[in-house]
Amino acid sequence: MPDAREQLELLQRGAVDLISAEELTKKLERGKPLTVKLGADPSAPDIHLGHVVVLRKMREFQRLGHKIVFLIGDFTGMIGDPTGKSETRRQLTRDEVQANARSYQDQIGRILDLDRMEVRFNSEWLSCLSFEDVIRLSSKYTVARMLERDDFSNRYKEGRPIAVHEFFYPLMQGYDSVALKADVELGGTDQTFNLLVGRDLQREYGQEPQVIVTTPLLEGLDGVQKMSKSLGNYIGINEPPKEIFGKVMSISDQLMLKYYELLTDVPVAEIKAMPGDFASGAKHPKNEKKRLARLIIESFYSAADATRADEEFENVFRNNQLPDDMA
Amino acid sequence: MPDAREQLELLQRGAVDLISAEELTKKLERGKPLTVKLGADPSAPDIHLGHVVVLRKMREFQRLGHKIVFLIGDFTGMIGDPTGKSETRRQLTRDEVQANARSYQDQIGRILDLDRMEVRFNSEWLSCLSFEDVIRLSSKYTVARMLERDDFSNRYKEGRPIAVHEFFYPLMQGYDSVALKADVELGGTDQTFNLLVGRDLQREYGQEPQVIVTTPLLEGLDGVQKMSKSLGNYIGINEPPKEIFGKVMSISDQLMLKYYELLTDVPVAEIKAMPGDFASGAKHPKNEKKRLARLIIESFYSAADATRADEEFENVFRNNQLPDDMA
Repeated sequence: MPDAREQLELLQRGAVDLISAEELTKKLERGKPLTVKLGADPSAPDIHLGHVVVLRKMREFQRLGHKIVFLIGDFTGMIGDPTGKSETRRQLTRDEVQANARSYQDQIGRILDLDRMEVRFNSEWLSCLSFEDVIRLSSKYTVARMLERDDFSNRYKEGRPIAVHEFFYPLMQGYDSVALKADVELGGTDQTFNLLVGRDLQREYGQEPQVIVTTPLLEGLDGVQKMSKSLGNYIGINEPPKEIFGKVMSISDQLMLKYYELLTDVPVAEIKAMPGDFASGAKHPKNEKKRLARLIIESFYSAADATRADEEFENVFRNNQLPDDMA
Repeated sequence: MPDAREQLELLQRGAVDLISAEELTKKLERGKPLTVKLGADPSAPDIHLGHVVVLRKMREFQRLGHKIVFLIGDFTGMIGDPTGKSETRRQLTRDEVQANARSYQDQIGRILDLDRMEVRFNSEWLSCLSFEDVIRLSSKYTVARMLERDDFSNRYKEGRPIAVHEFFYPLMQGYDSVALKADVELGGTDQTFNLLVGRDLQREYGQEPQVIVTTPLLEGLDGVQKMSKSLGNYIGINEPPKEIFGKVMSISDQLMLKYYELLTDVPVAEIKAMPGDFASGAKHPKNEKKRLARLIIESFYSAADATRADEEFENVFRNNQLPDDMA
């Protein structure tokens, strides 16, 4: 294991927030593997490049020898949305949860070493909580602090309903950190509030608070909105290499730089120089986009797969060009 | 059982709110005994005249042949205040809860017929709820509606903390009505919000909503603040007749009228005429106060006890006068 300073430098690269560098250093200096948690929604097992950003950060921890825990929120999924209002939160059966968990493993196996990680389900501890436990848990947090969370705050101000049970979701996620005795929790920047709840609850339950590391949200193919399955602006990691190649080639030059930064190991200096290189003609955007597409495919498939996808793309490209040239 | 109209007239006398008279009439017209609920805090088993107001209303239902349920909130009491901030909500042991329940029965037996009522404990159903049940229960209510409750609303506006678990107390009380299939719930006007939650939850659980009947809050001996043990401005129903007599004699003439109205069966017209009767000299306030003291004592003890207390008071009064007369 590299020394704490070296690890810290690596781990904070590309992170939006690290709370806090001092605490992480202290934990790393103990020289023991840290427990690093990443939570996953059991109802949406299709992993796309938006998730890859945080999974790559997870992989860094794994490569450094830390213990990573992929936590599937099956308890929440099996409850669904009790108001019945949300299509995306309909109640899952135990079989569906298990099937989704297997699907997750198939996919994250393209990024993480499945043999050196734990997959856990939060029903393991949450389903055992009594009403009394729930009361104790929720006594640790105030209504005012809950209403500070952006989406709650907006809905409250706009007069849109927040059901009381929705306050449990951050508490459950926070309690997961208590149950796992997490040292670090990763998440997108939209998870910051929930990750902080974990810190607070760990303190309340007498544990050292977890360090939180947030990664940027990735824009989808449109370059505007967050990548998401429901918006259709995504690249799924289970898509065939050919599909991935074509989709990467469709993005803007601007977005390409962002994808380089968040989805590849190309040095930051090189990425920053690209706009100048394009202007001077030293590099051509199309070539760099092809390189990006190959790098992304290589991270989920083999180099040969990437080459094949590249060739297929070139063939289609040339065939599509012909009629125009002939016209 | 008298007919519905006659019952309604009796039951709404002295009530601040009756929600709703139409619904109560409909329930009464079925001619079957109604289940009438009154909740009690298990941590404060000292009953004073402030509680007597609502217990008298309960007695009216009992005398009309309805089934009354005295519900002791032992589940809440055994949880106490998980924040540990409240002295009054410290966690009670099972033995303490049982002792308090016996004490309640000793006291309410002075007002209600113990042989024709049920005493229940809400731990019977609340302790069986799983986290999943709690989530379902709390999904029925929004944060915004909770924050409409006066004390929550004030604390939120003033920036004073409300712990998330405090939202459970109205929900638990409401769920008690579901568990009991209550037709009617009684309470002081400070309970209106919680009683309404019961109506809402019963609807959500497919039951006919309970009718709520609220009774006025009784001012304490000072005539200003609500009667309460903590303020020391109370008359406990377990106090010796002599004590009760002396305390009643100490109240203002104005407050005496209120006590007549809420604690005796003296016809309202007679009470309303008293100020005029005092002015004209037809009646003397001291005599009416003595009559009030006797009526209150008679409702908990015997007529002989009331007479004895009256005589003792007169003796002390005369003895106290002597030195002044001699001076």
